[in-house]
Amino acid sequence: MSFHDNDAFRVFCTYAGLTTVKMMSLSVYTIMLRMKNDVFMNTEDKQSKDSKVGININDYIERVRRCHRNDLENIVPFLSLGFLYAITNPSVYSATMCYRIFFASRILHSIAYLTPLPQPSRALCFIVGWFVNATMAWGIISFGMF
Amino acid sequence: MSFHDNDAFRVFCTYAGLTTVKMMSLSVYTIMLRMKNDVFMNTEDKQSKDSKVGININDYIERVRRCHRNDLENIVPFLSLGFLYAITNPSVYSATMCYRIFFASRILHSIAYLTPLPQPSRALCFIVGWFVNATMAWGIISFGMF
Amino acid sequence: MSFHDNDAFRVFCTYAGLTTVKMMSLSVYTIMLRMKNDVFMNTEDKQSKDSKVGININDYIERVRRCHRNDLENIVPFLSLGFLYAITNPSVYSATMCYRIFFASRILHSIAYLTPLPQPSRALCFIVGWFVNATMAWGIISFGMF
Repeated sequence: MSFHDNDAFRVFCTYAGLTTVKMMSLSVYTIMLRMKNDVFMNTEDKQSKDSKVGININDYIERVRRCHRNDLENIVPFLSLGFLYAITNPSVYSATMCYRIFFASRILHSIAYLTPLPQPSRALCFIVGWFVNATMAWGIISFGMF
Repeated sequence: MSFHDNDAFRVFCTYAGLTTVKMMSLSVYTIMLRMKNDVFMNTEDKQSKDSKVGININDYIERVRRCHRNDLENIVPFLSLGFLYAITNPSVYSATMCYRIFFASRILHSIAYLTPLPQPSRALCFIVGWFVNATMAWGIISFGMF
Repeated sequence: MSFHDNDAFRVFCTYAGLTTVKMMSLSVYTIMLRMKNDVFMNTEDKQSKDSKVGININDYIERVRRCHRNDLENIVPFLSLGFLYAITNPSVYSATMCYRIFFASRILHSIAYLTPLPQPSRALCFIVGWFVNATMAWGIISFGMF
């Protein structure tokens, strides 16, 4: 299949896998925090009768959930845009740089969100990732037909 | 690559790019509203000691967030379904109509949500987009193998 | 097009379509519950002056929304990973098993979430789906280039 000769596509595979695993790991982190703090969302999740059930009980868990939602809002567009971009015959160099910068920006974004680091560290990471997505979107729209 | 000869795919690229940019622009709009109204989600985002931190403080910001979540719930399936649909050899005409109608329905949905316009304007936009997705899903499932 | 000769890809089309429709059906279910219980998120959605508007009013609607968000967090990665996995030339058997197990785990997850069934039924469904995604991610990253 021609995909196997497309280097930009193979580089995309790596970073699509890595960003997705990074996003999926926040699910696991949320579950670990819920077990440790004994704070759940559903009555059937209670470990004992002292377990707390509800939202906005533990500030840090809410923070991890916001971080996860921010990933959904940014990494999911990347998965679509990055793939389509790889197919539009970009130079392998520019595609690789887009994927690497995006991946680095999202790793740093999560570190900044979960530590938390003082602003504007998180804002800068968000902006960098957002502009990589916008750049790829521009390439895709130019390639396309209306 | 054969993708370059697939007109339905090239039309999809355009509308995938446009719908994604439309969805990503809601992130920017949310940030602008947070700066303007001095309402944030995280303590480290405070601009001054008078900044308000929390959820459900500003009704309009919550509305924009609901609009963004609705986009995630509908545009993300479109990005997957629209791409797979383009590969199943649809007529270029029917694929183009699906993409155009979906894009228009989501633009109008956001306008109806953020203005806000009286119902059933938003409901109609949602239903149209939902049925375009369902139509493409049907085409994809028929093409597939179990 | 070479996609038409790729059996793993055709199997993916079926399960991508089915999981997406399953996820989209939760939007419809939420709307039906809102109409029936007269509980809405936006002022313009009120059916009469007695309609309730706000969040956290109806526990079961919040449960359906959590189920929907959990789908977004898990099915959306599947749509990307499953597609890329099909392209990396897996055996048709292992790809088919991945897709079927994931699909079954998410159907059962929703049943466990919405009934609700006692734990650990929902947790097990989540874990199975999560590991299918992780397995495919590993295959994709190995196939890729850095």
